[in-house]
Formats: sequence, C-alpha cells, structure tokens
Amino acid sequence: MTRQPEMQIASRVVYQGRILNLRVDQVRLPNDQETFREVVEHAQAVAVVAVDEDRNIFLVRQYRYPVGKELLELPAGILEAKEEPLSGAQRELAEETGIMAGSWQYLFSIYSTPGFTDEQIHLFLARELHFTGQSLDEDEFIKVTKVPLEQVPEMIRRGEICDAKSIAGLLGAALYI
Amino acid sequence: MTRQPEMQIASRVVYQGRILNLRVDQVRLPNDQETFREVVEHAQAVAVVAVDEDRNIFLVRQYRYPVGKELLELPAGILEAKEEPLSGAQRELAEETGIMAGSWQYLFSIYSTPGFTDEQIHLFLARELHFTGQSLDEDEFIKVTKVPLEQVPEMIRRGEICDAKSIAGLLGAALYI
Repeated sequence: MTRQPEMQIASRVVYQGRILNLRVDQVRLPNDQETFREVVEHAQAVAVVAVDEDRNIFLVRQYRYPVGKELLELPAGILEAKEEPLSGAQRELAEETGIMAGSWQYLFSIYSTPGFTDEQIHLFLARELHFTGQSLDEDEFIKVTKVPLEQVPEMIRRGEICDAKSIAGLLGAALYI
Repeated sequence: MTRQPEMQIASRVVYQGRILNLRVDQVRLPNDQETFREVVEHAQAVAVVAVDEDRNIFLVRQYRYPVGKELLELPAGILEAKEEPLSGAQRELAEETGIMAGSWQYLFSIYSTPGFTDEQIHLFLARELHFTGQSLDEDEFIKVTKVPLEQVPEMIRRGEICDAKSIAGLLGAALYI
C-alpha cells in the first residue's frame, strides 16, 4: 500500500463563506516532519470557448475586485450543487453571453492554482452558436466581446488576455479545432 | 474621472498565514447595492518553461495537498520579498530542477483565478540549459521529468498536465519558439 505523501493530522476551519472556505491542516511529510497547509476550498467551475462559423470567439469583460481591474475572460462560473459540468457550462454561457450552442465538446479540466486551492475548472468547446439574451446575476456586470480566434495569440502576448483559465482554454481549444 | 466599479466600504482581515491571507470586503456595486467580496491575498509567483536544444521541457512532479494528488507542473514558486520576477524565476528553476539557463525571455503574466485571489504568475522561457544540482526547501519533495515538447498537447488532452499555469505557459511558450 502506498503511503499518502502528506498525511492529515488535524484540520481547523478558519472561515466558511459564500464562494470559498479556508482551512488550515496539520500534516505529516514523507520525512516524518510536521508542517501545516493552508487550503482554500472552492466549488468546481466551468469555462467555455464558444466559436462561431467565422472563427470568432466570445469573451466577457468584467471588473475583478481581487485584482482591482477589468479582465477579458472566457464565459465561466461556479457549478451549482449537484450540477453536471456540461449543464453548468451551458447555463453559464447562456447567462453571461446569451449564447446557446448546438455542439458541445469537453476539452479538459484544470486546477487553478493547486498550491493553495482545490478549485478545478472544466473547459468546454461550444459551436453552432445562436443568440438569445443575457440573463446576469444581480451582482454581475458583464460586457460581451467578439474576437477573431487568430488574434488571440497576440492578445495573450500583449497581456490583454491574462486570466489563466482563459489562456489555457483558448490555446487548448486550438488543439481540437 | 471614472468611478471605481466596486468601491471598498469596509475590510475585515479573517486570517493572516504563511502563503496567504484572507480578507472579506464590503463593497458598493455600480448599481449602488452593497455586497461582499472574499479575497485571498497571495504573493506574486513565477513559473519557467525550460527548453533544451532537443526541444525537451523540464517538468516537476510533486504532491499537492489541496487537490490530494501528484501533479506534473512547470518549475515555479513564490517571489521572495522585493525579489524581481526574473531573479525569482532563475532561483526557482535552479532550486527545483538544478538547471541554470544562459538565455531568459519573459513571456507574459497570468492571474491564477481572479474571482477570489490576486495571485499573479509571471512566466518565463529559459534556454541554453546546463545542469548543476537540485536544492529543495525542507518541505519540498519534487521529481524532475524531461518531456519532448511535441508530446505536451497530447499530455494536456489526456489530463496528465492539468495545472493552469503549466498549460498556459507551455502552450503560450509555443507562440514564441
């Protein structure tokens, strides 16, 4: 039996909040020393690369309070309780951009920053798009932008797209289309 | 003067720790309603795409306690106080892999997950590699793996590389080399 590399000895819940919880765990390392790990618990999330027939993609621009600026990102959001990733991706794309898609493909899943959080984001590719209307949460203020897929690499190089899931999803989608 | 989209009204420090702090801020939204934002404060970080003359890249495999598994990632780490990103990248690459590089190029910077943390990771491309020896922190247990760059897309598709900064860095580096 393989020994767990870092064994939990104790766990203390520091905060239970709206989109995250924080706990601090005492763990035993492979060298038998003890240390502690700070873990931000976060629900699973989804993000969508929606491509139209002219190879445009749809990004959302919104103010991100933790970084103090507006960012250009893939449509994305947190899964609701017991929601399947595909359903969540369809819901978030519709809510944030008003887009419905006839074709959905799972790409891959990413850990946002596994040094301190369990947040995992499932990435999807959406095609055969048609448009209904945005329906945002009360505290969401989001502008939708259409960008030619071929401009994405230059936008990443210039720092205009600088969100990790969006870069991973956009460059990752190019492996599939 | 443009009004800040989300204005801080109050701020409460919930936790001050080793690699992160947590605060909960009361904010006023553009529609004048109030809500709160949970913000994980984290130091800036660096990650390195190190490519040798045969187009192999060097990844590190380590157990990530928050996600409960070993992940294959770019060499990376947190900047020390007042450390420049390039110096931090050189230090982390040397410590984690024992690699020194003769050529360094800044790629771009990413926000890990801007919905709840300010963590930003600066990505670098390192070439003209030569090898010294690993010098890990006491609580780091890291194995170095050499992978042909051309295998990276398939490893991402199969979920063998599933860390956001690593996917962004590896696919992003391909825009430069």
